[in-house]
Order: sequence, then structure tokens, then C-alpha cells
Amino acid sequence: MLLRRYTPAEAQDTLLRRVPIHERPVPQSLLDALARTFGEPLTPDQAVARIVADVRARGDAALHAWTERLDGVRLAQFRVPEAQIEAAAQALPRAVRDALALAASRIRAFHQRQPVTSWLTQDLGGTLGLLARPLVRVGVYAPGGSAPLPSTVLMAVIPARVAGVEQVVVVTPPRPVEVYGASWPAHPALLAAAHLAGAHAVYLAGGAQAIAALAYGTESIPQVDKIVGPGNLFVTLAKKQVYGVVGIDGLAGPTETLIIADATANPAWVAADLLAQAEHDPLAAAILLTPSDALLDAVEAALQEQLPRRARQEVIRAALAGRSGAVRTRDLVQALELANAYAPEHLALAVADPWRWLPHVRHAGCVFLGEHSYEVLGDYIAGTNHVLPTDGSARYASGLTVLDFVKWVGVVALDPDTAQALSGPAATLAEAEALDAHAAAARWRAP
Amino acid sequence: MLLRRYTPAEAQDTLLRRVPIHERPVPQSLLDALARTFGEPLTPDQAVARIVADVRARGDAALHAWTERLDGVRLAQFRVPEAQIEAAAQALPRAVRDALALAASRIRAFHQRQPVTSWLTQDLGGTLGLLARPLVRVGVYAPGGSAPLPSTVLMAVIPARVAGVEQVVVVTPPRPVEVYGASWPAHPALLAAAHLAGAHAVYLAGGAQAIAALAYGTESIPQVDKIVGPGNLFVTLAKKQVYGVVGIDGLAGPTETLIIADATANPAWVAADLLAQAEHDPLAAAILLTPSDALLDAVEAALQEQLPRRARQEVIRAALAGRSGAVRTRDLVQALELANAYAPEHLALAVADPWRWLPHVRHAGCVFLGEHSYEVLGDYIAGTNHVLPTDGSARYASGLTVLDFVKWVGVVALDPDTAQALSGPAATLAEAEALDAHAAAARWRAP
Repeated sequence: MLLRRYTPAEAQDTLLRRVPIHERPVPQSLLDALARTFGEPLTPDQAVARIVADVRARGDAALHAWTERLDGVRLAQFRVPEAQIEAAAQALPRAVRDALALAASRIRAFHQRQPVTSWLTQDLGGTLGLLARPLVRVGVYAPGGSAPLPSTVLMAVIPARVAGVEQVVVVTPPRPVEVYGASWPAHPALLAAAHLAGAHAVYLAGGAQAIAALAYGTESIPQVDKIVGPGNLFVTLAKKQVYGVVGIDGLAGPTETLIIADATANPAWVAADLLAQAEHDPLAAAILLTPSDALLDAVEAALQEQLPRRARQEVIRAALAGRSGAVRTRDLVQALELANAYAPEHLALAVADPWRWLPHVRHAGCVFLGEHSYEVLGDYIAGTNHVLPTDGSARYASGLTVLDFVKWVGVVALDPDTAQALSGPAATLAEAEALDAHAAAARWRAP
Repeated sequence: MLLRRYTPAEAQDTLLRRVPIHERPVPQSLLDALARTFGEPLTPDQAVARIVADVRARGDAALHAWTERLDGVRLAQFRVPEAQIEAAAQALPRAVRDALALAASRIRAFHQRQPVTSWLTQDLGGTLGLLARPLVRVGVYAPGGSAPLPSTVLMAVIPARVAGVEQVVVVTPPRPVEVYGASWPAHPALLAAAHLAGAHAVYLAGGAQAIAALAYGTESIPQVDKIVGPGNLFVTLAKKQVYGVVGIDGLAGPTETLIIADATANPAWVAADLLAQAEHDPLAAAILLTPSDALLDAVEAALQEQLPRRARQEVIRAALAGRSGAVRTRDLVQALELANAYAPEHLALAVADPWRWLPHVRHAGCVFLGEHSYEVLGDYIAGTNHVLPTDGSARYASGLTVLDFVKWVGVVALDPDTAQALSGPAATLAEAEALDAHAAAARWRAP
């Protein structure tokens, strides 16, 4: 069986139990690689701390050294020349260029509809409120990984530009490729996406060293106010370490989909969506919840049938055998309960009446209603964001929105009468907190 | 001179230069105390990691042990009985009770005016949008410190309740006191504030051990989804460590005020506001920027005159001699430039026409317009929040708002025609990313 089956009770203790990424066991092969690189046994967090400290202390020199050591590339300069970015946009096959442009325009249209409401009230004696202000400088991490991810560049850069961020820079690991009849320092689809999305610059830097460069600045790479975008374990640990020096969007773990399906769902489509999820990463989670035994059997048959034709079979098999599985639930109510407890990154409602169930969804990064609205559309082109909370952080966090690129400045402009009337009670509270100078500042203004 | 004077150029390299809290040197006395407590030399971060791991592993038993060791208190139970919380509300002197109630009602009224806009659009073929969902469980850290801070309880609990959070719990270090004719496990003003604000429970736990208890849950203390509220170095380091297991509001450093004043400002009031700021903490920053030499001299004279009457003179002197100072600027334009570069927690515009300058404010936690709207009102009773970004994080972060207690769930419900039309381009993009199973999931739906 490709998709192991669980009862709801079993699933709660195993398949659906949450272990945050930084508490998962680290593979021995990774620890061995770290020991070889650093000449002594280090945890990933310790390795990241060394890289971050070095880039902070030595800037470009350290960035060059780590790029050579970890990416195996000696760069003449970190910044990708503007002409090369424009050339990439021209070099793409027409179909890819058109699809990227369509995706960019829909993502922009969606994010432009985000209300960002500065507000002032005159109801409390004078004027009080909160004013939205865009961030000034944002850094976007675009993973190199096993495949270039131009879509992530669109998803991170466009909302920042819509919010009014002045300077949006992209960092991506150097991955020299020969494609479309030319040599490129990173995949041209990624460079073209940066161009389309309106990024102000692209730098070739990856891993913890790239995050450190954005947090502290180097001679070549500007210091930013916030770093967004997913990355591997080292990128995530580095983001956590520099949080407080700069803002971050969150800590990304492996991707997850939870599909709730009923007997009306098309098993071939459900299977295709599970396979798409599983091909990301051996740690990806592709989970099916359904009250229908018939659907379970039909999806399993469809998986068996489709899998041999997939290019990334090895990854898919590992993911299906890992954090993936199917749960036969009592009914859709129980499926929603399990989904809320899991708080998935993606939640697909492949059921007859998905809108009926939407009010039951408490925690999810993004919900896909009905089997026509499948996850791959959200990954690329629907317009919604695909940078979403993983590892159960949908309990408290959201996907990227325009709101991630503004902050709120409080405004206190009380009228003199109200200020005077409030000064006595303020002094009383200050005295209750034994803050005598606070009380004195208030007493100066009291009648 | 109590308030050391700087030129703008000097100030940029010294007074106004930012060093994040976790990168500041740790006093030797603190390191010595850690070595005594742990029996070996540890950094604060290492000490916090030990406490967090222990509470995670052993729950209440560890929490009891650390509370006894670090707070010197042996507790029968962590939870403050409901009856004791109600008794506290009754025991307060009438003036304090009324002032707390007035503060709570204004804070509630302000935060209820926050727009929290779920939105759906039909412009992109079907329905897309973002739905606000309140967090379910929130933990509020209320510092014990040198003084009880009931105001912080109001500031953190009320916006969570306004957002619709189901369960809001307060943790505060055990600080047994005899006051108002009875014995209390923590200051009754703080307990009364929790009652007024609508907290569901108060637990006696402080420091890193309290943060660990909220992040992982113990037999007595519920696991929460997000932890908010300021605390000392150990609380802040613990919040950073558990970030990712739960959400956090930010990393709090020592408080800061930057006052921009012109020749029209009342020097006695400016001095009183600087003294109020300085009494918080020897590390507090009280900074004055003004183009007026006459005002500088008058404020210095007022400080000399007022300081001897203040109860917390030692703290104030240390703070004024530390991160505080005055800068004589060329004009108000330059003062605003320096303020934006510093990104202060509090920014007071004690100038003739404060509204004229508000559009120039890019980074600040909260702006106080005109000398009638002074910071102490914002600390207690204006209605705006006093949990604000410190250490320059106002570049990318905000004070607590109702928005901190909701997350956004994406909605993708494309109509079948749009979904079909987008499936071809989605497959093209998936192929460009070499994600074959994504392409296949899209091709299944394409015409």
C-alpha cells in the first residue's frame, strides 16, 4: 500500500502529531558533513552561529569564503548585473514567460485588494489611532534547492512592492546553469521572476551566510529590515538566530497538504494532488482524511497507477512512506476536527459542498474549496500566496500578506481637556506601580 | 550636567547607535550569579536553554524546583484561586480601582475600533480572499520586577479578548506581599487588573520557566498558541528559544523615549517626562532632540530642580548617565531624521505644530503629539497600547494590536472555467521548476 491507513486515534498519536522542525532528530549524514566542514562535531545550530558571526565580523570576505566552501563557487561579484536579469526575461521560452507574467499579474491583483487600514478615532477625547507605514528594506530568500523556484520570488517580492517597500532585494544560492543557449549564474526563470515582480536587485548568496548578510549588511549586500521566504534547515536556523536584529516572516518547515475528501471526489485528481505534494521533499506530508472506504481504495489504486509515470518517484516514495498517510474518519465533522488539531499549511476540501465546511476551519494556511481549486493552482497562479505557515504554526501564524510589509505607528493626540482629566487617574496608577516620577509627570499636568 | 549633550554627528556614533539586546555585554555580576546557580559558567542563553529543557521534560516538578531556586518561593499550587482574584479587585483602594477601571474601559474602546477585515474578491474568477480567525489560547507574561505592573496586564489581555481569543492566561512571578490588610501571592493590583481585563486564569510563574511552561504546557499550566508581554533578559531569551513552538509578540529590550521639542515646549514638563522615562531601569533611554539652546538649558535646570524630589533617584541617575542624552539639532527636520534612524519605542513631538511633523515619522512604536499628550498617559490610560517595539525594531515591528491575536486563512475557490483556464499555465510553470507531479496534477484538469 502506498498510502498507509490510520484510524483517527492512531493518527493523533503518530501521523498527526506535531514535532517542530528544530526538535526533529538531525540525520547522522548531516552531522558527519558538518564535522567534515568545520573540523569538529557541531550541531546545525552551532554551525549556523559560526557562519553568522563570521559574516557579521568580516562581511564580503566571509561571504566569499563560505560561498566557495559550501556552494563550491568562486564569485567575481555577488550582485547579478541588471543586464543579465533583463536578458533572462528575454531568454525564457514564450510559454514560460507568458505563464510567469500571468501569475505575476494575478498575484499582484490579489494582493492589491488587501485592505491596509490606517485609522484614527475622535471618540476618546482628541485623536487616537494607528497609522500603517511600509517597511523600507526587505530581503527575500529564494531557495536554489533541487529545482529553481521562480514562483517563490513572485510570492515574496510582489506583496512587498504592493505594500510600498522602497527596496526589495532577492538572495539566491549561486547555481550556474547552461540553458536557453547561454550561461547563467542562477536559473534564468528565477532571474526573470525577480524582474517581473519588481525586485530592485538579485544577489548570489545562499544558506546561513545569505541570511547573515541581509541581517548585518556587507560591503556588497545591503542590511534589510525584514527577511522573508522559505529555505532549508540552515536558512531557517539562521533566520531564528538573527530575529531581533531584523524581522522575519516565520520559520519554514517541510511542506504539508491535508485533503479532506468525500465519496464525490475524483480519486484520480486526489491521487495526483497527493503525488504533487509528495514530490517536494522526502519530509513532505501528503495526508488524506475521508469517511469513504470506497474513495480510500480508489485513491490507492490511482496512486499505484500514476506513480510509475512520475519523474521524482524516489522522493515521492520516501515522502509517502514518511510523514504521509490516510485516515478513515467517522464523518466530515471528525475530519475537520482532526484537520484543525493538525493546523495544516494547505487544506483541500474535495467535498460536495465545501462552503458549508469553511466556517469549521479554524487553523490552516490556505483552504482550497472544491476539487477544481486544487493546490497546484495556489502554488503558482491563483493569486493567493504560497508562502504559508508549516509545522502547525497555522495555529498562530499566517501566510505572507501585504500586512507583513507594513507596521503600525500608534498616534496619541488627546485634546488638552481630556489630557488634563486623565492626568489624575494616571498619577494614581503610577503610584500603585510605585513609579514616582511617572506620577510626578502626570501631577504637573493635573489641575 | 545631568543630560549629556551631543552634536548630531557624535550622537549617531554613540547615543543613537543601536546594539540589539542579545548582543550587549552581560554584566559580570550576572555571569557570577549564573555560575553560582548552575555550578558552572554559563551564558544567559545557555542557562535559559537548560531551564526550558527541564520544564519541557519534567513539567510541574521542574517548575516547582526552578520557582523555589530562582524566586525563593515554595508554592502549594501555581494557579491563583478565582476567589483571591476577586478579593483583590475588592481590596484595592477606591481611587486605584476607579483608575484601573477607567484605563480598562478606554483601552477596550480603543482596541475595539481596530478594523479586522476579512475579505473576499470575485474579480479573479470565482472567489479568493483572506479570513481572519482569532487565536485560541494566549499566554500573557506580566513582569514582577521592582514594581507590579497591572497596566501591562490590561494592555496585553484586553486586545486578546477583543480579538476573540478563547482562553487568555496570565503568568507572573510569585511575589508574596502584605498590603491592604491581607496577604497576597502577587500584588493585588495586578490580580485585579487580570480580573478587569477578562483573563481566564492567573498562574504564579516567572522567568524562563514560565515561558517554557506556556510553550510546552505542564500538568498545571496550559500550552498556549502565542506568548505576549515584556520581561527581563531571561524571559526575552526564553521567548526567542521557544519561538516556532509557539508564536511570540517580539523581543523586549529596555524602554526608550525620544522627545523632539522646540522653543515653545514647557521645560518643566519635558524634564518631568525625561525623569519618568529614566526611572524604569538603569538601561532606560531618555533622549531629547531640540534645535533650541535655550530649551536645552532650561530643561537641564528643571532636571536639576526636580530630580532631588524623586523617589527612584538612583535608577534615574544611572539611566541619565547611561543610554540617555540630549542632541542640539540644526532644525526640526534634522531631529526627525535622527528619530527615524533611531526608530524609538516612544516618540514625543513637543512642538508648536505636531501634526505638521507626523507625516515625517517613518519608524516609531507610538507618537505623542503635543505636550498635552505626554507619554505617561499612553503608559496607562489614553487607550493606545504600551507594549511597543524597542531596540530599533520599530523599523519592522509594531506595538501590540488586535491584529496580533488573529491570523489569516487564505481562501481559494476558483470557478471551474477559471480553474481550467489556469491549469495549462500552471503546468508550464511546474515544468519550468522541474516539478513533474505538479505539472501532472494540473494536466489532469486542463482541457
